[in-house]
Amino acid sequence: MTDLRPIDSKVIPRFAQHASLFRAPIVADTAGLDIAVFGVPYDLGSSNRNGARLGPGQIREMSRLIRPINGGTGVNPFKLCNIADIGDAPVNPFDIMESLDSIAAFATNLRKQGIASVACGGDHTVALPLLRGAVTPGQPVSLIHFDAHSDTGDSSFGMRYNNGTGFRRAVEEGLIDPKRTIQIGIRANLFREGDLDFTYNSGMRVITMDEFDRLGREGVIAEIKKTIGEVPTYVTFDIDGLDPVHCPGTGAPEPGGLSMRDVQVILRSLRGFDVIGGDVCEVSPPLDPSGSTAVNAANIMFEILCLVAEALHHKKANAA
Amino acid sequence: MTDLRPIDSKVIPRFAQHASLFRAPIVADTAGLDIAVFGVPYDLGSSNRNGARLGPGQIREMSRLIRPINGGTGVNPFKLCNIADIGDAPVNPFDIMESLDSIAAFATNLRKQGIASVACGGDHTVALPLLRGAVTPGQPVSLIHFDAHSDTGDSSFGMRYNNGTGFRRAVEEGLIDPKRTIQIGIRANLFREGDLDFTYNSGMRVITMDEFDRLGREGVIAEIKKTIGEVPTYVTFDIDGLDPVHCPGTGAPEPGGLSMRDVQVILRSLRGFDVIGGDVCEVSPPLDPSGSTAVNAANIMFEILCLVAEALHHKKANAA
Amino acid sequence: MTDLRPIDSKVIPRFAQHASLFRAPIVADTAGLDIAVFGVPYDLGSSNRNGARLGPGQIREMSRLIRPINGGTGVNPFKLCNIADIGDAPVNPFDIMESLDSIAAFATNLRKQGIASVACGGDHTVALPLLRGAVTPGQPVSLIHFDAHSDTGDSSFGMRYNNGTGFRRAVEEGLIDPKRTIQIGIRANLFREGDLDFTYNSGMRVITMDEFDRLGREGVIAEIKKTIGEVPTYVTFDIDGLDPVHCPGTGAPEPGGLSMRDVQVILRSLRGFDVIGGDVCEVSPPLDPSGSTAVNAANIMFEILCLVAEALHHKKANAA
Amino acid sequence: MTDLRPIDSKVIPRFAQHASLFRAPIVADTAGLDIAVFGVPYDLGSSNRNGARLGPGQIREMSRLIRPINGGTGVNPFKLCNIADIGDAPVNPFDIMESLDSIAAFATNLRKQGIASVACGGDHTVALPLLRGAVTPGQPVSLIHFDAHSDTGDSSFGMRYNNGTGFRRAVEEGLIDPKRTIQIGIRANLFREGDLDFTYNSGMRVITMDEFDRLGREGVIAEIKKTIGEVPTYVTFDIDGLDPVHCPGTGAPEPGGLSMRDVQVILRSLRGFDVIGGDVCEVSPPLDPSGSTAVNAANIMFEILCLVAEALHHKKANAA
Amino acid sequence: MTDLRPIDSKVIPRFAQHASLFRAPIVADTAGLDIAVFGVPYDLGSSNRNGARLGPGQIREMSRLIRPINGGTGVNPFKLCNIADIGDAPVNPFDIMESLDSIAAFATNLRKQGIASVACGGDHTVALPLLRGAVTPGQPVSLIHFDAHSDTGDSSFGMRYNNGTGFRRAVEEGLIDPKRTIQIGIRANLFREGDLDFTYNSGMRVITMDEFDRLGREGVIAEIKKTIGEVPTYVTFDIDGLDPVHCPGTGAPEPGGLSMRDVQVILRSLRGFDVIGGDVCEVSPPLDPSGSTAVNAANIMFEILCLVAEALHHKKANAA
Amino acid sequence: MTDLRPIDSKVIPRFAQHASLFRAPIVADTAGLDIAVFGVPYDLGSSNRNGARLGPGQIREMSRLIRPINGGTGVNPFKLCNIADIGDAPVNPFDIMESLDSIAAFATNLRKQGIASVACGGDHTVALPLLRGAVTPGQPVSLIHFDAHSDTGDSSFGMRYNNGTGFRRAVEEGLIDPKRTIQIGIRANLFREGDLDFTYNSGMRVITMDEFDRLGREGVIAEIKKTIGEVPTYVTFDIDGLDPVHCPGTGAPEPGGLSMRDVQVILRSLRGFDVIGGDVCEVSPPLDPSGSTAVNAANIMFEILCLVAEALHHKKANAA
Repeated sequence: MTDLRPIDSKVIPRFAQHASLFRAPIVADTAGLDIAVFGVPYDLGSSNRNGARLGPGQIREMSRLIRPINGGTGVNPFKLCNIADIGDAPVNPFDIMESLDSIAAFATNLRKQGIASVACGGDHTVALPLLRGAVTPGQPVSLIHFDAHSDTGDSSFGMRYNNGTGFRRAVEEGLIDPKRTIQIGIRANLFREGDLDFTYNSGMRVITMDEFDRLGREGVIAEIKKTIGEVPTYVTFDIDGLDPVHCPGTGAPEPGGLSMRDVQVILRSLRGFDVIGGDVCEVSPPLDPSGSTAVNAANIMFEILCLVAEALHHKKANAA
Repeated sequence: MTDLRPIDSKVIPRFAQHASLFRAPIVADTAGLDIAVFGVPYDLGSSNRNGARLGPGQIREMSRLIRPINGGTGVNPFKLCNIADIGDAPVNPFDIMESLDSIAAFATNLRKQGIASVACGGDHTVALPLLRGAVTPGQPVSLIHFDAHSDTGDSSFGMRYNNGTGFRRAVEEGLIDPKRTIQIGIRANLFREGDLDFTYNSGMRVITMDEFDRLGREGVIAEIKKTIGEVPTYVTFDIDGLDPVHCPGTGAPEPGGLSMRDVQVILRSLRGFDVIGGDVCEVSPPLDPSGSTAVNAANIMFEILCLVAEALHHKKANAA
Repeated sequence: MTDLRPIDSKVIPRFAQHASLFRAPIVADTAGLDIAVFGVPYDLGSSNRNGARLGPGQIREMSRLIRPINGGTGVNPFKLCNIADIGDAPVNPFDIMESLDSIAAFATNLRKQGIASVACGGDHTVALPLLRGAVTPGQPVSLIHFDAHSDTGDSSFGMRYNNGTGFRRAVEEGLIDPKRTIQIGIRANLFREGDLDFTYNSGMRVITMDEFDRLGREGVIAEIKKTIGEVPTYVTFDIDGLDPVHCPGTGAPEPGGLSMRDVQVILRSLRGFDVIGGDVCEVSPPLDPSGSTAVNAANIMFEILCLVAEALHHKKANAA
Repeated sequence: MTDLRPIDSKVIPRFAQHASLFRAPIVADTAGLDIAVFGVPYDLGSSNRNGARLGPGQIREMSRLIRPINGGTGVNPFKLCNIADIGDAPVNPFDIMESLDSIAAFATNLRKQGIASVACGGDHTVALPLLRGAVTPGQPVSLIHFDAHSDTGDSSFGMRYNNGTGFRRAVEEGLIDPKRTIQIGIRANLFREGDLDFTYNSGMRVITMDEFDRLGREGVIAEIKKTIGEVPTYVTFDIDGLDPVHCPGTGAPEPGGLSMRDVQVILRSLRGFDVIGGDVCEVSPPLDPSGSTAVNAANIMFEILCLVAEALHHKKANAA
Repeated sequence: MTDLRPIDSKVIPRFAQHASLFRAPIVADTAGLDIAVFGVPYDLGSSNRNGARLGPGQIREMSRLIRPINGGTGVNPFKLCNIADIGDAPVNPFDIMESLDSIAAFATNLRKQGIASVACGGDHTVALPLLRGAVTPGQPVSLIHFDAHSDTGDSSFGMRYNNGTGFRRAVEEGLIDPKRTIQIGIRANLFREGDLDFTYNSGMRVITMDEFDRLGREGVIAEIKKTIGEVPTYVTFDIDGLDPVHCPGTGAPEPGGLSMRDVQVILRSLRGFDVIGGDVCEVSPPLDPSGSTAVNAANIMFEILCLVAEALHHKKANAA
Repeated sequence: MTDLRPIDSKVIPRFAQHASLFRAPIVADTAGLDIAVFGVPYDLGSSNRNGARLGPGQIREMSRLIRPINGGTGVNPFKLCNIADIGDAPVNPFDIMESLDSIAAFATNLRKQGIASVACGGDHTVALPLLRGAVTPGQPVSLIHFDAHSDTGDSSFGMRYNNGTGFRRAVEEGLIDPKRTIQIGIRANLFREGDLDFTYNSGMRVITMDEFDRLGREGVIAEIKKTIGEVPTYVTFDIDGLDPVHCPGTGAPEPGGLSMRDVQVILRSLRGFDVIGGDVCEVSPPLDPSGSTAVNAANIMFEILCLVAEALHHKKANAA
């Protein structure tokens, strides 16, 4: 099997060689992998400013900056698991439904091989097909959802599959358990009254920024743990959950959001939970002149990767 | 009368149609309006980096992002009041005094029609003529002033009307009551000792960033409420009151300032107070490669609009 | 009827008031118009880098720079015709076919009122529905087509309506006469051999950059005139027909193209021909940090407007 | 006297030390100078997009790139003359008339010391006070004027001194001889018919881009030489005379203009003529994300400097 | 002696005249100075994204914004000490060792004249030669080190002198006392386990962001004071110690860092301590489209300057 | 063997999958290749603005735009030869001589396998080690050198190997035949008289821009053919040979240069000549906000690739 260690930045400078996620090896053959990192260059779900189809390219480029050992936890995911960058899920730039199907098939194929997925979008619609792939049918997962928007609308311009409806569909399709779903960072203005009805009626736990302030990080972490429980959990991160200072390059920036520090502290607190996969979405490079949004997305994706790697390693160790 | 609802972003995508403030209708005839939103494309008061004359254009463009129902309070100003974008106050790009007069006349005309003003600059000089318009002669208002700089200088390069002197003039002209004036975010270095003498001597309440930290948001809110009292209050916001991470596109960024979250929490706490109008100034689009400064300005302007709409609605309801 | 003169930049500075195309009045009611200028904020036809949905907003903003009297010809279109900015054609950001239909209906409605269209995209797909609207059924028009790419593919990713197929569809639908169609600036690399078969087989006249150099501007102009003849002619301009130095902000820049000077000289030479409408497409503002692409698009659109206005004025004068 | 050689880029890297024009020494004392290079950071004459007040700073920064020996002619102006960067002319950012007076006084003072001026703006208004300084009273000079606009309006918004009126004033004040004035690159659209009446009626020679194409560079050069004659000649260069690809960072870009190569060839052809001074104006750094406009301005300023140095050297040699 | 007051921004607008640090006078002769501010345009120590050689130029430009009286403390360093901008330390753009030697010699020469140094880089390697200059041989100083990275590696690509090894060398060379060294903001991922061994083994006090949060600003300040004691202390600031929202323009941004407000509060708390000099490094202007990183660097450098000036003034006063 | 066809953009959208040069397959094993395309991320030879080490990453990203069949000649290099992207040559970011050696070894190894090299830098120093690799010892090649600068200096800051000396070294090392070397686009100002002595004395043919204008493209092509003759020829392209409008993102832009059209016409005229390899250098992405410089570099590299592929195919066919 290919050597699956990431490129050693002490031997090959970080600016050199092809850009891959975290400098992980680029492989076509997924045999032997524990975790696949990949892109989903799809943005047909954007109702306003698009460009997220270019996200994976830029996130790969910026992930050159990321060193392999987590500065907060000391975890080196590449030591715990076999990880490779397997490229991008297939998409059709002119066909929403075909793309969602092909992304789901791609992700399902990984699950069937026993490979966990940590992906980057693409607009947030892609979380739906990624969940279709990652979730074992009939076994809805817990969801930790960072976002400024709840994404539980029913449809927009007549389209039921877009970047504002994914988690309603995920509930309807039995992919996530709304009572084990927690949304963090919700704060955007609404188009219409009732926009959040599904969220609340389905039983999702919503932590608005007002509540975030009241609870503090530790309180939020406790709520997350209480909500998700000890079942398989997926982490989905719309980059606009962050305050726009951390994500100028996104379609729908909403002031008053999370800091990268908040996110680091929260995600690192979830060690020991059964995080089975995740995604980071809504980075639009053309809106990001300094590239800082992609840097942050790469860092968040790495935090999720660490959680998935550690959980997987733990399960394997237990199984052994 | 024209339909005064803003464009419905569920019907017409946010990137479509002419840019207007919050997608409010563009009207020439102000009859029937409760609140006018408009621009003041004036920057002859800038002693250093200019470009704020282009502010209203860019703020309009970025305000496409703002949905009509306040995410924090649930207020929909467009349901409470008749609101339209009436364009820009007239200015002469070569004449300071004529411009200040024409802006004041424009604003006065609105007040005489019983229409409240929520405007965007332009440099901060424009707060003075806007106050001349908004304030009933002889009845100085309370002022909530967000800024890194106190703007109470006497003159600069011999000119008594510029973006560093407006609130001294406003006191002298009886437009604001200095004892009911509170400045928040003051922190800039000084040109000379004594630069803040007028501020303190006139009795303004100044909350520096040091005091802001000591008091915390809740303490600051209490101070604001205590200072302004229950009289008509105007809100003026120099975007550089924010930390520069939130306003890279302004003439005089000063590190160590307010966050957008601070501003949201503070402004939303003022519901129930008699906010009669306001402005957001000092956005210079050419200095703002990602447009984030204009996004923030549009959001702050929207927060002020909600306060004005709710106060007005309340007064009307009481009057009815 | 509304005063249809554009805003006088000697009275209201160019940076002031709402952005409209060439500072033309913004009207909802098209009665009495001779020519409508409008946007088509559609980019679902982009197979690669998108963002052209934001084109009309930015082109409006940059068209503030354009003064009303053509510097090359002395034509003032606003004196010859009633012209207004009627906003944007309706689109559905999630539905290709619905959008093409609604754009066509919008354009058809104008034609039925006897109003000529000069539009800006959006990606180049929109030329097809614009032609469906502009062309009297059964009377295919001549076409002057500036582009780096021939756009006569049959389909891409299974989709027959995208920014690479529009003029094949236009031939098939009887909207343009291929023998009276001339393509100027063609030079891009090809995906596959045979990519240009339809172009040549249908009888279109193609002026590659190699031939452009051989003929020189005057020779090219002669070829255009010979090709289009004295029948109604539509002008469609993909901004990437220009050399990328003139259009950094487009999805598919192709080095070695036309200069703005070339375009000015060519278009100005067409006075006296029956130019009935036109469009300028493929400006993607997020890819255009200095805004220069939109400036050029606005200028080209103005040149087309002058041609249409003069032709229309002439016909009216003859009719009178 | 100070060593007046520019910094040697073979000893001190070009990125090092304070930015000065062409790395010339920064001096406060003008004694002994032959030529002063300086900035005029004034932009109160801009009727639309401003920011040219920041021009000198950026042009200094970019002039680090320029090596001392002219690549086309072999002239090293620093060998021929004593040249220093004397800083910026004084301006009042709030006062048009005071600024024009102080700039004129500054330039006059140089002339009275026998020092020639080569300056960079600032908006193009500054050419007027620079001419007031450079021209011996009663002895109007020839003028070579590169520009997209004729700048011979009478007033704008009631102001007779702005960036569109300077050369009308210069004729009225007897500073330039209109019959020995040649304008090159004129092409902008007009606000109103008659905008160019003064230009033509006063006898200026105008080379529009149409004529430029017809004459070719050599023909244009012949026209220039014929027009200016052998009398003292001043060169004024509005950067927007260039095609916008060469000057994205200017207030009023006009497509279809001169190339830098055109300008180099033309200016280098004027060796032997009595060029007594010049300026380059209208670089607005905030509109210039890549800095290329300032690079070009610095290069043009250097070409003018070479002409002035050679003419001066020749006169001194003859006198000796 | 030259007048050493900075340019008065009330007389000469901030956009005018040559850029110097804080508008301090540019001098070649250091006689009579108490403090020299200067640049070190060196970036050969960058293992990844470079460009910091352009830092001093941009920091000078942006320091035009800084007024002379500290907004937090009221200190005016220019009243307390003779301060001038003496240009840049000499470097060889092709030779690491020669550059480090020439920088050290430059700094040593200042110390020998009794002049304190406050410098801006350049990459962080330059702190080493600056310390070689600033520290009296045999008397290691205390160090306050703000950074995301510990910079105590042994070598990289075989090179022992780069931007990741400087403080290990400084310990080895006896320049700093590791037990009186405190690192603040450390958080980056690691290349390899053991990357921080030297840091901890040598006895440095490390305040990671986790500990920063636990201690709070006041706790951190107490730790700093306890660590450095009352001995001479140098402050070195890698701009990436800040959260990337404050430093998009740096080579190795690391999310989750310090805010400018944190830095202001901490540095201002150190009044009364014997701060003998300092530096701010790692600003790479080409990576900084809005210039905000350089603005922040200039502000931090000013805070350090205030500390040095006050300490020096105090010592002189005591000596007198 | 791996399938060596580039990714089919009709199946996988151009924005998808890892960035490789021209979407060629990424391979580690060079067996079976005819031509290797690769990057040389080295910029330690930059005496001024650096960043070219990031060039290969950005050129790969932008080469997604390039379709496989040459629009001018119809050549599809991927049909003629086995071509793959083999990554980057090894470099040491802290060691000039080691890097030059490792690049040369990398290139030599390819030659020894009979694989031709087409590379992208990196600063122009890398042409020297690339030539060391590409040239059979003892058989100096012809050289076509596009550049604004002659790069035949002897040393700079004491360093004999930098981006201004490479072709002098190449002559000295017997890699190129100066009498069969032609430099095109030379025009930069000089540091010192005599800077071009080596160029001329060694017998190189220099086509300055003045001569370029006189000869016209066809004349230049004739000169090139005459100079290089029918021997193996290497093409080296410093992107600053182009006019800066085509290469804003380079360290040393020099106005008045070649257009991309010039380059296309010239390179395409060289079909039939024995072009054995080439490089494109000096793209500095941080200086290139719109990415246009990298787009142009990718296009030029593709033109060279076509020449090499055709020559190689021809030789193989003849051999067969």
